[in-house]
Amino acid sequence: MSASAALEVFHAAALVHDDLIDNSDTRRGAPSAHRVFESRHADSAWAGSAPDYGRATAVLLGDLLLGWSDELLDDGLAALPTQAARAARLEFNRMRTEVTVGQYLDILEERAWVAMPDDAQRERAERVVVFKSAKYSIEAPLVIGGAIAGGSPAELDALRAFGLPLGIAFQLRDDLLGVYGDPSVTGKPAGDDLREGKRTVLVAIARERLSSPERQLLDDLLGDPDLDEEQVRSLQQALRDCGAVDEVERIIAMRTEEANRALEAAKLDRDASIALADLAGAVTRRVS
Amino acid sequence: MSASAALEVFHAAALVHDDLIDNSDTRRGAPSAHRVFESRHADSAWAGSAPDYGRATAVLLGDLLLGWSDELLDDGLAALPTQAARAARLEFNRMRTEVTVGQYLDILEERAWVAMPDDAQRERAERVVVFKSAKYSIEAPLVIGGAIAGGSPAELDALRAFGLPLGIAFQLRDDLLGVYGDPSVTGKPAGDDLREGKRTVLVAIARERLSSPERQLLDDLLGDPDLDEEQVRSLQQALRDCGAVDEVERIIAMRTEEANRALEAAKLDRDASIALADLAGAVTRRVS
Repeated sequence: MSASAALEVFHAAALVHDDLIDNSDTRRGAPSAHRVFESRHADSAWAGSAPDYGRATAVLLGDLLLGWSDELLDDGLAALPTQAARAARLEFNRMRTEVTVGQYLDILEERAWVAMPDDAQRERAERVVVFKSAKYSIEAPLVIGGAIAGGSPAELDALRAFGLPLGIAFQLRDDLLGVYGDPSVTGKPAGDDLREGKRTVLVAIARERLSSPERQLLDDLLGDPDLDEEQVRSLQQALRDCGAVDEVERIIAMRTEEANRALEAAKLDRDASIALADLAGAVTRRVS
Repeated sequence: MSASAALEVFHAAALVHDDLIDNSDTRRGAPSAHRVFESRHADSAWAGSAPDYGRATAVLLGDLLLGWSDELLDDGLAALPTQAARAARLEFNRMRTEVTVGQYLDILEERAWVAMPDDAQRERAERVVVFKSAKYSIEAPLVIGGAIAGGSPAELDALRAFGLPLGIAFQLRDDLLGVYGDPSVTGKPAGDDLREGKRTVLVAIARERLSSPERQLLDDLLGDPDLDEEQVRSLQQALRDCGAVDEVERIIAMRTEEANRALEAAKLDRDASIALADLAGAVTRRVS
């Protein structure tokens, strides 16, 4: 329970910093942390800039949550045999470094893609998916849980073989929801990823398929924070018409299939297998 | 050695985030982290805003360093008896939370002081000193070292009784250097704290001593990022003429004396006592 709480609080820290970095106004249908503090400043007769105060507070709130996640994990691991505790801690540490580096690759890619060869963009976008999200959202939590339960190296490897492709499918679904998701369900404005200019696998595939003038239009619009609804709809249409959405759906199906095959090969006990198969269905077919 | 490295890397994380929060251009005579990454963006033909990229990267770099400081500490504590390791870890955890909350109180005070009663400002400024700096810079590292060495509760209390007043003296010296320090020695622009609008104990004491029109002028200038050299000099003069600088020097001397008395009462071994007395002299008389 403490280890789960540690992962949840770590995730909260990442979201607070992520919303700050992406300049997102909302999270789960409510104002993002930096906006909450910005409003608090604006509602008081305080000195200085409200946005600066919001940003500064969000940096510190994320730092506080990072520290607390670490303490929660230690509390959870304290009662375990040394070897299980050590394996779980190493996996948590690896996750913490990898997701931070993955986030960096993501923001780097948003900016540096213009200076990269066109034919490298899909591979670079896939690398972001693996580090920013796939390992962190599914693989690492499963392996941490497995290590806490005293899983053998072979069992932990089986969880990895299931978790990584499923995590990739999870993030590709997230990318589609970032462009096509229903704001009333996702809690984020429609087309948020288009205004933010995220260089997702979806975008990389579309750029391979579009004609040169269409690709130029995509590049011009993507990342413009002032896109209006009409422009968002036209981008949504262009990404669909070139077949990129179908291609991403195909990869999601393939990765999910890969995860399910790994699960069958793993020979885990029946209850665990059913729970993990349910998880695979839930994260790849979700709408929010 | 690993524990010392953990503290150093934690400190680096705090500085990266602190410079971002304070919008500082330089650190130790070189560009601050967010400015380094901002320049890297500006020097490349990348998309998007260079300052946004600099800020985002500094958030993530600080996060990465926070995680690594934690791993270094674990490495250092792994070989210790359980009780010593646990005591050192608890002190580190407490420090991590307290310094983050102290940083928050600092940025809150910079903005909220206008809405606070005048007679509470000195006490509020002293609270910032204790949490943002005094415990973190001297007390916690000493107690962590003491715990690692297997110090008794009484010995750790003695280190606290020495470390806290010395940490307060250290930060008050820092506040004076932030206003009067020589840029070629401190590595920061002259009057940086005045442009930033830090609500230090020095400023709180000056506000108690200045006439109403002088106080108004101080409040108008302090925190203006565009202060010119002439205005910086006039603020330096006003803080000195009202006796606030002398009063801060008096408190520094009193706190240093308090630390030294605690050191004498502690009956530590001779080498440790000499090293700590040297430390007390160094941190309170430093010029950078």
